Amino acid sequence: MTKIKYKLIKEDNKARLGQIETKYGTYETPMFMAVGTRATVKTLSPEELYNCNCGIILANTYHLWLRPGEDIVKKAGGIGKFMNYKGPTLTDSGGYQVFSLANPKDITEEGVKFKSHIDGSNLFLTPEKSVEIQNKLGSDIAMSFDECPPASASYEYMKNSIERTLRWAKRGKKVHSNKDQCLFGIVQGGPHEDLRKYSAIETVKLDFDGYSIGGVANDGESKEDMYKAIDYSVPYLPKDKLRYLMGVGEPVDILEGVERGIDIFDCVLPTRIARHGNAFTKSGKINLKNAKYKEDFTPIEKNCDCYACQNFTKSYIRHLINVNETFGQRLLSIHNIRFLIKLTEEIRESIKNNNFDKYKKEFIEKYQNK
Amino acid sequence: MTKIKYKLIKEDNKARLGQIETKYGTYETPMFMAVGTRATVKTLSPEELYNCNCGIILANTYHLWLRPGEDIVKKAGGIGKFMNYKGPTLTDSGGYQVFSLANPKDITEEGVKFKSHIDGSNLFLTPEKSVEIQNKLGSDIAMSFDECPPASASYEYMKNSIERTLRWAKRGKKVHSNKDQCLFGIVQGGPHEDLRKYSAIETVKLDFDGYSIGGVANDGESKEDMYKAIDYSVPYLPKDKLRYLMGVGEPVDILEGVERGIDIFDCVLPTRIARHGNAFTKSGKINLKNAKYKEDFTPIEKNCDCYACQNFTKSYIRHLINVNETFGQRLLSIHNIRFLIKLTEEIRESIKNNNFDKYKKEFIEKYQNK
Repeated sequence: MTKIKYKLIKEDNKARLGQIETKYGTYETPMFMAVGTRATVKTLSPEELYNCNCGIILANTYHLWLRPGEDIVKKAGGIGKFMNYKGPTLTDSGGYQVFSLANPKDITEEGVKFKSHIDGSNLFLTPEKSVEIQNKLGSDIAMSFDECPPASASYEYMKNSIERTLRWAKRGKKVHSNKDQCLFGIVQGGPHEDLRKYSAIETVKLDFDGYSIGGVANDGESKEDMYKAIDYSVPYLPKDKLRYLMGVGEPVDILEGVERGIDIFDCVLPTRIARHGNAFTKSGKINLKNAKYKEDFTPIEKNCDCYACQNFTKSYIRHLINVNETFGQRLLSIHNIRFLIKLTEEIRESIKNNNFDKYKKEFIEKYQNK
Repeated sequence: MTKIKYKLIKEDNKARLGQIETKYGTYETPMFMAVGTRATVKTLSPEELYNCNCGIILANTYHLWLRPGEDIVKKAGGIGKFMNYKGPTLTDSGGYQVFSLANPKDITEEGVKFKSHIDGSNLFLTPEKSVEIQNKLGSDIAMSFDECPPASASYEYMKNSIERTLRWAKRGKKVHSNKDQCLFGIVQGGPHEDLRKYSAIETVKLDFDGYSIGGVANDGESKEDMYKAIDYSVPYLPKDKLRYLMGVGEPVDILEGVERGIDIFDCVLPTRIARHGNAFTKSGKINLKNAKYKEDFTPIEKNCDCYACQNFTKSYIRHLINVNETFGQRLLSIHNIRFLIKLTEEIRESIKNNNFDKYKKEFIEKYQNK
């Protein structure tokens, strides 16, 4: 049995220090997972991810289904072997991407009809199909196919949606056949306390290997609604299973999530903001395009142990970003990923020392320049 | 004195094995120089260049003059420190770029008027200005500012042009003030035997630190004209100075150049063809986009010692190129640069063993699938 196993090590109020055993080694949680949409974390090599101390990385089922196709990935030995990443991997269900490409009328009990973003061809994704693709992709953690209703959805729509998501979760679980792969259930319900509670309780009844909280990173979702959604869901999730907050990676949100009992996070943020010249620092985000860095021959952040900060200046990275050279994006991606991973390392240390609250307060004060 | 010093070690017919002493260490020639136009070899880190066994790398004066500006590079400690490349660097004169942006009527005795490719603003480059910029960029080797007439230029035009290039070479040498930097002269003269001879003899009279043969990689230049240009120039170049064939990087052309007594080469080819999915192999160029590599889980080339071949399959790289992910371009760039560097390593070995001719013949036969 090579399935990932979670163990809760200790709690500091609701914040959890945990451990996951995988065939690649043991990793600690809370953990930030870098996103490698198309079987590559944009611009980076596996070695650069190891050097950032990455654990699980995430790939997107929808994108890999279309190109190169799940059968090629399976023949390569699974997503990890395909991209030569010697660590654990997680695939999403494709739902998040699919719903942004579908019309509401194309969502039926059976599944979702939508048009390919590549060639406009008609595609159809069902809970069974999503799980079958993920079985072939061979990630260590697969996600159930769920509906992600927009933040603007009515209470009534949301209620019907979580019922359907539960039926879909059941259908996906039924066909899940990869014994080395975990399958996670997803709690939905928007900002509604009763719906989150109902969705959490009913999803847990289906007995998944872990649980995620979805629908919190949609466009138009407020921070307050995100924190509420976690507060309303977490009490009904079992303590001995991983808890995953999907699509969240702002440093403050990671801290808020950990405080509420979340173990793992993922987000495209560190690589996406890198493309626009942005870098996380302990004193908040900075944009390297700013003229004040023109002759700044110091690293992005003093005392940062990342490859970019150990070897290059703001002035040089600014130049690379300004002339649109990929190496600039690569250096900022390394720095930003390392920043979030380092944040989780410090969070874990603070939980060990029972002072997560203090750490969180001090981090946010400095980060928000208060 | 930290100027690069060349030493001829041995000859095998006209092919030369040489050594350059630099403040970064000793390197052997023949050598292929990777091109880092904007102070970065596209997509690659310095460490990746060291792992390819790169020696000198080249940066473009025109591009760095415009962005970030030579003063910033000087303040950073020179081009090497700016980009954190711990090896020798060479800058071109800007001429090649400038002439492609200028109208013929804008070329005067004083210099060249042209419009910036970035914002269309009016710019003026002179032999003095080019050398002064390069002094500040602080490369280990600077090039004289020369006119690069098109292949279609008349004999008369070419004759006048080489006279002006000689006057420009004198003017540039006069203002060259960086004592740690070599300044090279450039031989022009198109495919005309008498003009190449005259240009070589007169340029050598000016006593530069090394000599390059220019005007062989222009659009419309035939291979035969390139080989002739070398044959007509080399006999008049001193044996104890480096000989540089500008803009040439096709494997067969490197071999033809070495056979005729050339020491160093540069070309954007390995990184440019990488962007289009092409890889050098001993059996010729291949395009990874080809459908036949879809399920090819072997490296680009068996027995290749590069990072790409040691870690990734054709199938994976093909996927990355198809979905336009930079990591694919990066892997192909590493492979292609390593391929050309390895070629020069094998060339050096063959010169040591007095069998360059045999090596060249066998390489070309296999490369051209004869």
